[in-house]
This record gives sequence, structure tokens and C-alpha cells, in this order.
Amino acid sequence: MNERDLIALLRPLTGSGALNLDDDVAIIAVPDGHDLVVSEDMMVEGVHFPAGRIGAGFSERLLRTALSDLAAKGATATGYMLSVAWPKGRDPDRLLDFVTGLANGQSAFVCYLLGGDTTSTNGPLVASATVYGLVRHGMMVRRSGAQPGDQVWHTGQLGLAETGLAIISGKAVALPAEELRAAKEAYLRPQPRFEFGPALRRYASACADISDGILIEASYIAGASQVKLNLRSEALVGAEFGDDYELLFTASPQNERDLKKAAREVGLELTLCGDVVAGEGVAVDGSPVDPTGYSHQL
Amino acid sequence: MNERDLIALLRPLTGSGALNLDDDVAIIAVPDGHDLVVSEDMMVEGVHFPAGRIGAGFSERLLRTALSDLAAKGATATGYMLSVAWPKGRDPDRLLDFVTGLANGQSAFVCYLLGGDTTSTNGPLVASATVYGLVRHGMMVRRSGAQPGDQVWHTGQLGLAETGLAIISGKAVALPAEELRAAKEAYLRPQPRFEFGPALRRYASACADISDGILIEASYIAGASQVKLNLRSEALVGAEFGDDYELLFTASPQNERDLKKAAREVGLELTLCGDVVAGEGVAVDGSPVDPTGYSHQL
Repeated sequence: MNERDLIALLRPLTGSGALNLDDDVAIIAVPDGHDLVVSEDMMVEGVHFPAGRIGAGFSERLLRTALSDLAAKGATATGYMLSVAWPKGRDPDRLLDFVTGLANGQSAFVCYLLGGDTTSTNGPLVASATVYGLVRHGMMVRRSGAQPGDQVWHTGQLGLAETGLAIISGKAVALPAEELRAAKEAYLRPQPRFEFGPALRRYASACADISDGILIEASYIAGASQVKLNLRSEALVGAEFGDDYELLFTASPQNERDLKKAAREVGLELTLCGDVVAGEGVAVDGSPVDPTGYSHQL
Repeated sequence: MNERDLIALLRPLTGSGALNLDDDVAIIAVPDGHDLVVSEDMMVEGVHFPAGRIGAGFSERLLRTALSDLAAKGATATGYMLSVAWPKGRDPDRLLDFVTGLANGQSAFVCYLLGGDTTSTNGPLVASATVYGLVRHGMMVRRSGAQPGDQVWHTGQLGLAETGLAIISGKAVALPAEELRAAKEAYLRPQPRFEFGPALRRYASACADISDGILIEASYIAGASQVKLNLRSEALVGAEFGDDYELLFTASPQNERDLKKAAREVGLELTLCGDVVAGEGVAVDGSPVDPTGYSHQL
């Protein structure tokens, strides 16, 4: 398989602006009155995904994790660029899997391939996804809007992805079949929370996903908003690991009833996990923590 | 060094829309009446750049090669996203070099860092640059506009980058000092031809850079435009290698005088290297060639 063969495989995934992958560039249309929101995620075999188990799961997970950043901002996904460094000599059938994973990933959303780059590498598989979304001008939910007096919420169940990774890494996990399946799904097919976007845009003062871990994300929101986040440990069970593509957000207590109603309507679990006060950093049960120590070593 | 330290190093490179790298996303403003043009390039140590010689040159070259695609479309650069998978255990000082290379690369253009991703890898250095540019709506110069009767032109001197790579790979090259310097520059600091953008928008019917090789690019333009490109071998000396970030473009013979004048004004060498006829594919001196055989194996 060469670059042209791969492009032929990718062409059916494209939408408007991709120019049929016939050009070196893509054109992104941004309707008047809207902002274009962009995020880029890079995934490395053996670091973010178990080495030697690269099937369709790798690329679908990459696309979904990148889209999660858009969903956390209240944006609507429109398209993505995809670049991949493919290990020399690896079975070309795996490249078919890679394309299948993208097709599976995008099929859940209204989101098309725009372009990208393909190359070879002497090392592990590396791929990057750059995702594009739209919000009405000025409506993006930033990390920097948390206010003293706000409540702190997270969505979903923490720690599920860690269990999922253990399962697909071949470890024995003693859980009922249904929970095993849910855990595996959480790792392989994280759910960008687009369906909660309207509520975020309306009620949230700050939001991001907690893929780096909920405590690290709390510290980022605290830093960007110049406030302190007080979290309660009983609402953080399972939070150590990261890789949960759930949301951490802040909102005025006045919005509590509307938020709960909006979450219920889309079947999303909401947990009140703390509050925002004047100050800086993050505290758990009143004790300051320094979660930034978990930042990736380079 | 961890991810936070790197982000602190990168912050001075950012401009409007990067949100001070405090968020997971960036916002790209697109003025009314304009199209956003986007291109993504991925570079791998040991494939696109000699292994073990990764200094500021790697990242500056990556940024410049990506920007070259925008320049070829008649777009004006505005910003870029940058993702990097950094080899575990490599000297952190080299990461300072990497940031310096980006600073050097962007300083030549009005173009700022918007965001990206950083991770580690057990393999060689891999980095991707996604670059953004603007053109007035509908004014982008595509690959697909070549018409029978058009002339075919290339800019600059072909083969220079190949000599440059030989030099930085430590091979002995017998050339005068000034030519050695020019060759090294062509490899390490390819020049996106933004200064020629107004002429391209006005006079060119199709254009792209020839980084994959001039014959391959000619076949892409022929395919996208559904025409045949007849090239003359004496105008293609040095063309085999690729990695020359010069332009291949087509234009009506009526524009010949204006094109030459515009090129002279910005100090750009222009070579008339063929013409466009009805048909398909590429011919050199009348004989059909199949340059697509050079497409990267994956």
C-alpha cells in the first residue's frame, strides 16, 4: 500500500471543504456570526494505547477523544484533519482497520474528514487529529469563567476507562459482564458530550473534559479563572487515573435545577463535587493538593 | 521538563485566539468574506530529517514546509497548531532548541502559535504542524484549474534541497562556499513563496508546491484538472529528488509578461517548463511518464 492507495480509502470519509483530497489543503467554511473552535490531540502506540493491539480501536478512540474537547466547549463538530506516521513493514491490513476506526468514529457525529498527512516511521504508530467545531460568536465555554459562589459538577462515572484499559490489556477483571462491557466502551469509545452542549452554553461558567484527571483539570480551571476549587473526596471516587472523557464544569447554584433537568433529558449522570471560592489552586476536603505533579514528563 | 514547563516556553509564541494556551482549544477568527485554508504536515526523525541531528532546524523546517502549502494557494498565513511526540529520555535542552526553531520559523511571517498537543514516545521524534491562512472567498488557487493552452512554470532552482541534505548529513560536497550555504538553506529553511501570492491569485489557473517532486506534482495537477501536462526535460534538471519547496503553476500565455514582471519584482526565478493540452497524465519531451510510482510506501 502506498500513499495514493490510502488516500483512495480515505476519500469516502470526506465532506465539503476536503476538495476530494485532490489538493494539499482544505477549505473550512465559517458561517458569519460564528467562531471556529479547534483542538489537536496526538496519540502514540505504547503510550496512549497498548502496543501490538492497534486495530480500528486506535483511530476511533483518537477521533473521539479529540472531539470530546469540542463538546466540552459547547461547540458543534464539523470536521477533522488526520495525520499518521505508519510503522514501516506493518501489515497493510491494519491500515484498513485504521480507516475503519475513523469511519466508525465519525459516523456517530456530523463530522467529516478534511485532509491531513501520511508518512512512515521506524518507531511506533503516531497519529494526530485536529478537530473543528462551531459556536455562535462569543458563546464558547472557556476554562476561565468560574466565579466564587459557583458549584462544581462532573458528569458520568469516574475510573471506568481505567478498568476498560485493564480489560483490553488482558488483565483479569472480576466484574459482571455488563459492567465489563461498559468499562471497555469507556476506554475504546469515549463519548464526547455534544448532547449536553446546549446546557453548557446556557448554564456553565467554565468547562473542560477530565482526560488528564479530574484534579489536574480542576487546577487548570482554577488557574485560568483565578479562583480556588474546593472538592469533596466522596464525589471523586475512581478519579486518580485520568482518561475519563467526562466533563468538569462550574455553574451558578441558581442553575442547579435546570442543569439536573437538562442532564436527565439526555441520560447523563451529574455529580455535585465541590464549590468555587476566592483564592487559588485546588483543595480536597479542605486540604490543598498539588495535582500538577501528574503533568506528563517529556 | 514536563508538559507545563513546555507550555510556559511556548506561550511567548502565541497570538490572538490561542487563549494564552490556558484552554484545551483555540479560536480561529475568519473575517467575513474570507475562506480559511488549512494544511497539515507531519515530520518524522530519520525519515524527513537526519536522525540524531535534531536541533532548532527540525521544527523550523516543519513549520516552513507546512506554510509553503498555504503560499502555493495564494493564501496569507495567520497561525498554526503544533503537536509533538518527544522521545523519552532525550536531553530536555533539545526541547529548547525545538521551541527556538518555531520562534525562528514564525518570525519570518505574521503567524502565531494557536495550540496543539505534547506527548512522549518510545520511538523517534514525530511532530505535526497544522497551518491556517486566509484568502478572499473563492480566490484560492487550486490544483484543479489548469486549462488546455496554459503554460506550465516552476519557480526557483530544482535540486538545491537535495544538495543541502547531503551537506547536513555530513557528506563531502564540492561546491563554492556561497553555493554550499544556499543549498543548506534550501533544505533547512525552505521559503514559502508568500511574496508571489498576489501574482498567483491574479494570474495562475492552478498551483502547488513541488515538495513531493515536480513530476509527481505535475501528475496531481493533471489529475485534478483533467488535462495533460507536457514538460520539457531541459527545464527539469535536478528535479528527481523532491523536497524543493518551489512552486509549479499553470497560467494562460496572455499572462506571461505580467508573471515575469511580478516574479522579477520579488526576486523570484521563473522557468517556463511546459504546456497544458487536452488528455491526461504527464509527458516529458513527448513521452508519457508515470511519476506516481514514487508515492511514499506505507
